[in-house]
Amino acid sequence: MKLYIGNKNYSSWSMRSGVLLAAFGIPFEEVKLRFDFSPDSPWTRTIAAITPTKRVPVLVEDDGFTVWDTLAITEYIADRHPELPIWPRDARARARARSLCAEMHAGFSRLRSLCPMNIEAFFPEVGAKLWAEDEALRADVARLEQAWGDALASSGGPFLFGAFSAADAYFAPVAVRLSRFGLPVSDAAAAYRDALLAHPAVEDWVAEALREQDFIVEDEPYRNSR
Amino acid sequence: MKLYIGNKNYSSWSMRSGVLLAAFGIPFEEVKLRFDFSPDSPWTRTIAAITPTKRVPVLVEDDGFTVWDTLAITEYIADRHPELPIWPRDARARARARSLCAEMHAGFSRLRSLCPMNIEAFFPEVGAKLWAEDEALRADVARLEQAWGDALASSGGPFLFGAFSAADAYFAPVAVRLSRFGLPVSDAAAAYRDALLAHPAVEDWVAEALREQDFIVEDEPYRNSR
Repeated sequence: MKLYIGNKNYSSWSMRSGVLLAAFGIPFEEVKLRFDFSPDSPWTRTIAAITPTKRVPVLVEDDGFTVWDTLAITEYIADRHPELPIWPRDARARARARSLCAEMHAGFSRLRSLCPMNIEAFFPEVGAKLWAEDEALRADVARLEQAWGDALASSGGPFLFGAFSAADAYFAPVAVRLSRFGLPVSDAAAAYRDALLAHPAVEDWVAEALREQDFIVEDEPYRNSR
Repeated sequence: MKLYIGNKNYSSWSMRSGVLLAAFGIPFEEVKLRFDFSPDSPWTRTIAAITPTKRVPVLVEDDGFTVWDTLAITEYIADRHPELPIWPRDARARARARSLCAEMHAGFSRLRSLCPMNIEAFFPEVGAKLWAEDEALRADVARLEQAWGDALASSGGPFLFGAFSAADAYFAPVAVRLSRFGLPVSDAAAAYRDALLAHPAVEDWVAEALREQDFIVEDEPYRNSR
């Protein structure tokens, strides 16, 4: 199967599925479509042909069957690989993991809009200014602290539900945002953030993002060039 | 177990979980919290005590364990009731159903913001004006037509994947919006909309919503009173 993704440097949703597949050693062919929203670009032509939502990631089976949206991709992979602990094995931990992923999927909007993922760039001054000025951003991070804190206290860590699961793949781009914008977090959240960033699947994704050296203006609210 | 919901007239997310449980005959105790966002209201005090997200629906087990977010509630119920076809039995239909639910969960933002669910109210003139003026609204409905059309063509209907499933519960509030705002849809989409509205679990929800006769100003962009 193929996983269509966007720029590794910017595409936080692609990262969730890419890291999940890599972390569990599931073989797949990665197809990267550079973000280029002009009418005739490879991005525009290809994405329209494979998914009605025109968004990445998209999983495409060899016969053309497609699954879109990270949550649906996660469930599809978990369905196909019952032998892998993609979700926690305990029913309640699994329910909690899904609650957190669903909350991330439609929430944390201020963190997502103000602090877009940009793996190669560090914005500590922007982060400090946003942190001082934006109450909704602080509320998003406070909620994150609470969600992570509860899960880690229950499981004992190092990942949210003990061993690395789909929930951790879901929060990997958040770890990047916290780190690149230097947002202040508790010691417990910092330890989890760093455990995420040190996971081999995350490290590989970050290393490949750093090799892209691309600049997509739509994803760069805080830089004029590289 | 208990399902905490908001006003049946307004709460589209509550409706998704309430209709799902009712449609599959899963016993639960419904706890309705009237929307009232003032600091000391029963809503404010109760919701803060049971869920960190302060949103309904929330499923609460007898010993206090909570599951929040409709998608996570759906998966939890499907996990607990493998004997029920909450998701389609076919793996690919199931993946497609989850793609559509995930897309609904974080998308269709213009339809959701411009045409909020208000079961007791009919706004055909507002709907006609919005339809004429708002390209993003028309694009959301066009995408809906495509998504529904593909699924119905594949399954043969009457529901998206043949028999009623979680995906249909997810689109029940959309059927209400289309109907209350009189948005123009194809014959195929209209037939599906009407099949949804005629499902007993949806009819029951609608009947109870009509009995509420409440007016929550935050959910009433188009009326000054009942």
